Amino acid sequence: MDIIAPVVTPFRNGRLDLDLYAEHIRNITAKGVDAIFVAGTTGLGPALSVEERKALLEAAASAARRVIFQVGSLVLDQALALAKYAERFDAVEAIASVPPYYFPRLSERQIAKYFRDLCAATTRPVYLYNYPAAVGRDVDAKAAREIGCLKGVKDTNDSIAHTLAYKRLMPHMRVYNGSDSLVLASFSVGLDGVVASSANYVPEALARLREYVARGDLERARSLQFAIDEVLEAARPLGYSSAVYELVEIFQGYDAGEPRPPIYPLDPEERAWLRASVAQARSKLAP
Amino acid sequence: MDIIAPVVTPFRNGRLDLDLYAEHIRNITAKGVDAIFVAGTTGLGPALSVEERKALLEAAASAARRVIFQVGSLVLDQALALAKYAERFDAVEAIASVPPYYFPRLSERQIAKYFRDLCAATTRPVYLYNYPAAVGRDVDAKAAREIGCLKGVKDTNDSIAHTLAYKRLMPHMRVYNGSDSLVLASFSVGLDGVVASSANYVPEALARLREYVARGDLERARSLQFAIDEVLEAARPLGYSSAVYELVEIFQGYDAGEPRPPIYPLDPEERAWLRASVAQARSKLAP
Amino acid sequence: MDIIAPVVTPFRNGRLDLDLYAEHIRNITAKGVDAIFVAGTTGLGPALSVEERKALLEAAASAARRVIFQVGSLVLDQALALAKYAERFDAVEAIASVPPYYFPRLSERQIAKYFRDLCAATTRPVYLYNYPAAVGRDVDAKAAREIGCLKGVKDTNDSIAHTLAYKRLMPHMRVYNGSDSLVLASFSVGLDGVVASSANYVPEALARLREYVARGDLERARSLQFAIDEVLEAARPLGYSSAVYELVEIFQGYDAGEPRPPIYPLDPEERAWLRASVAQARSKLAP
Amino acid sequence: MDIIAPVVTPFRNGRLDLDLYAEHIRNITAKGVDAIFVAGTTGLGPALSVEERKALLEAAASAARRVIFQVGSLVLDQALALAKYAERFDAVEAIASVPPYYFPRLSERQIAKYFRDLCAATTRPVYLYNYPAAVGRDVDAKAAREIGCLKGVKDTNDSIAHTLAYKRLMPHMRVYNGSDSLVLASFSVGLDGVVASSANYVPEALARLREYVARGDLERARSLQFAIDEVLEAARPLGYSSAVYELVEIFQGYDAGEPRPPIYPLDPEERAWLRASVAQARSKLAP
Repeated sequence: MDIIAPVVTPFRNGRLDLDLYAEHIRNITAKGVDAIFVAGTTGLGPALSVEERKALLEAAASAARRVIFQVGSLVLDQALALAKYAERFDAVEAIASVPPYYFPRLSERQIAKYFRDLCAATTRPVYLYNYPAAVGRDVDAKAAREIGCLKGVKDTNDSIAHTLAYKRLMPHMRVYNGSDSLVLASFSVGLDGVVASSANYVPEALARLREYVARGDLERARSLQFAIDEVLEAARPLGYSSAVYELVEIFQGYDAGEPRPPIYPLDPEERAWLRASVAQARSKLAP
Repeated sequence: MDIIAPVVTPFRNGRLDLDLYAEHIRNITAKGVDAIFVAGTTGLGPALSVEERKALLEAAASAARRVIFQVGSLVLDQALALAKYAERFDAVEAIASVPPYYFPRLSERQIAKYFRDLCAATTRPVYLYNYPAAVGRDVDAKAAREIGCLKGVKDTNDSIAHTLAYKRLMPHMRVYNGSDSLVLASFSVGLDGVVASSANYVPEALARLREYVARGDLERARSLQFAIDEVLEAARPLGYSSAVYELVEIFQGYDAGEPRPPIYPLDPEERAWLRASVAQARSKLAP
Repeated sequence: MDIIAPVVTPFRNGRLDLDLYAEHIRNITAKGVDAIFVAGTTGLGPALSVEERKALLEAAASAARRVIFQVGSLVLDQALALAKYAERFDAVEAIASVPPYYFPRLSERQIAKYFRDLCAATTRPVYLYNYPAAVGRDVDAKAAREIGCLKGVKDTNDSIAHTLAYKRLMPHMRVYNGSDSLVLASFSVGLDGVVASSANYVPEALARLREYVARGDLERARSLQFAIDEVLEAARPLGYSSAVYELVEIFQGYDAGEPRPPIYPLDPEERAWLRASVAQARSKLAP
Repeated sequence: MDIIAPVVTPFRNGRLDLDLYAEHIRNITAKGVDAIFVAGTTGLGPALSVEERKALLEAAASAARRVIFQVGSLVLDQALALAKYAERFDAVEAIASVPPYYFPRLSERQIAKYFRDLCAATTRPVYLYNYPAAVGRDVDAKAAREIGCLKGVKDTNDSIAHTLAYKRLMPHMRVYNGSDSLVLASFSVGLDGVVASSANYVPEALARLREYVARGDLERARSLQFAIDEVLEAARPLGYSSAVYELVEIFQGYDAGEPRPPIYPLDPEERAWLRASVAQARSKLAP
């Protein structure tokens, strides 16, 4: 069961800090992360240009052995160009994509065609990145099976039953859940792993959680999940996408850069409040 | 970890068949069900009169050693009367109640007062029966903690994270999930058990599923969950509340009575279709 | 265009006060209300017994010339009995019913059969009372047309387009919107009227609003609607079903009785707060 | 009351056809459209590059006297650059922006700051483009008032009460509804107008509808609205964003270009089906 980190994308004054990006990846993979999800939601993917995404991929491929590259775009040609670019890198084990977002009135045919066009443009496996709360549509197991060419899925969804349905209908698919609140559940029911933003700040805790589950030590596993839940509860009202940067600093001890507006960084008061609020969880999650 | 059955309430021409009710309870408890949930949603609780609910309780208490009695009502005095009546029966280990339903414009104060009034009227533990899809409101872990007197919860909810939150905030609470699609997940993350309508028709399969989880045989456990999911997928479009009666007959081989309109029984075509649709799942779920 | 009042049901110590009920009806019909909606949501219909609903109907039929009787129930026989009972009263111009509520897993066939059974049991026109936020399902214009025997609809819905669709697909249907925030819109687009709980406390203002719309004086009409919106905004967080009783006292100057728990009456602080909060709107709505 | 057209953006082989864009604008403004909404949802705004949006604005400003320019972006600097660019054109009467979309976990502070930064960067009035179904968040009247610097709103929302609330809380704001199903309602309750995608294909009908409302001829106005509703009902399942191009050809008789994948053009069968499906509505909407 994989622990996959949708890595944060560090900005300095609106520009990428690629060294920091690679360094952060090296740190968390050393601490138990198995693979890197580039340009996901935590990585602000939909807010990045094609060039920025290519640069991130290059840095990630140099720093990690296993990379999944998220190429979703509202311009098909951009998604295809990114998918083709990825072929240069052996580390890229799959291309992932969110379905077209924002436009609420697309048909099922259009969504399916998008993924088929993507499959046709690459030799790498294509994964669905299903995230209804961001995308506004749900490409569920039945719809995914209909598409026909998908080899994996990251399902960011509160319902583990929804995620398991992909495995039920397509037993050979790689199936990951993407919700930090469902790490325990994902490992316990035997998914192929998790894509968890908390892998940015508590990779060691996720690795231990997985070990506890493997050993059947549910009590310890649950206590780690609950500590992660406490962090989420504190961080979400501040804007979770921005809080993750801060949580890296709080838990890992180094500056992880900043997001880019309109994903504004936390302000000083929010930072202080967050640090105080997670103090208790921090001692529970300490290695 | 408990397997609790929210038993169907069998009607014949609009009247309760209490003998059948008791017999059905005896059959499924013999096959692995630990406790009986009387007058839940599967039992058509909100569609029953006070007298009918008392009669059901009496029958259940005579047929099972452990009973949870659902007393939720839009008339407080009825809920209180049912709670008091339950004190006669040693088998009643808890009173449960849905929050006031239908009325979308009640305040948090009103909901909390309802549960506090219920707690004050009984010496038995009071459980929350949280079912947002039926009730139209979510009494989540924070709201439940605020209420102060709740000792357990049946959370009918697709999100196992939502259910786990009760345990996180109130470690001494008895916490059950009520979704048939989450039996595997509920056992795997170590909830106190499940309240699953499928316990009416495949109690043996649930018992085996629990055993597989206990042994760490996730593959077999998952394959049972998937077979249950196939049954749900076939039954839901027909009206699941009515289909459960039919599923008892299909899987357990005896007539389980009928629901009462407007929860209309399946019509002959629907019955035939359902039987054919679950044939494959049936062979997977066979003892 | 009709102004229809879904009248509050006054309790004293948990029992109906029928004299007050009739008196209240006489007052508001004298002030511009055209017809009375008995045992709707504002009238706590789904929380009343069959006997209570019969008593209310009798009182309403004695006090008003035009009555719509809401008979929705989770027991079909009760709904039918109420529909039959209504035939005694000439004032009853229609039977209305919410679709079966609470049970989220009924099929379209079951919902349609419920209304057809109701139509078959009465010589009076049957109206759909569509209220998705309370019922958990939407019987929209297409579904209503499919049912075939419906002669009218009260659509409690924020979308006036949703309400207009009944008129579009079934031009001969009586079509009312049931949302207090859409009185201006309902009159302006030419619906057959409104069923507005505010008719309990500001019937004169609704009558004037209708007159302003008829005269094309949109500015005055809008200013009345906005004043009603201010009242709603103040009252809703307290539990609107309970606040309505208080608003009758505040605006009409007489005690309107109490709701019945779990629809708890406002507590003294809430009452004082509400009175203060609507003071400004009150002067705008004054006759 | 304004009729504002969120114009379609015509592509040919993935590139803008600016001549066609200007020609289309000239045609519909000649037929009753008062102002042009550039790079809205119908115009595929969020799928366009900064350069493409600048080119569209230039073309629109040359073809229409009144232009609203939608600049929403997931990169603040791009939104600001577009807002600044717009200052060159006298025709630009306002800058509009959707709130940051896709990212479901932004805080209220972040959303408010986005709009304040936009207001600070331009001398033109800034309008909120509220579209919860696309954006995943609702910036309602209270939130908009809190932001402080907004001068107008396009509210794409089924609830006209939601739209009216902006007017109630901020009487000096320009308030438009953006739903094609609410044209009649928007004119009838006296909003400042509509931003309706149907202005691309039936501008004359919208102008007549407005006239009928002004004259108090509700019946004719409603019959036009119902014909528009029939078109929407036929077009939506095909992917409305793509169908609009086709509808221009069907109703206006000229080729309006194509959308850009993943907003795929309709396929030949869909086109034929759409043409047949709207035939009846077409005769009702004919000038």
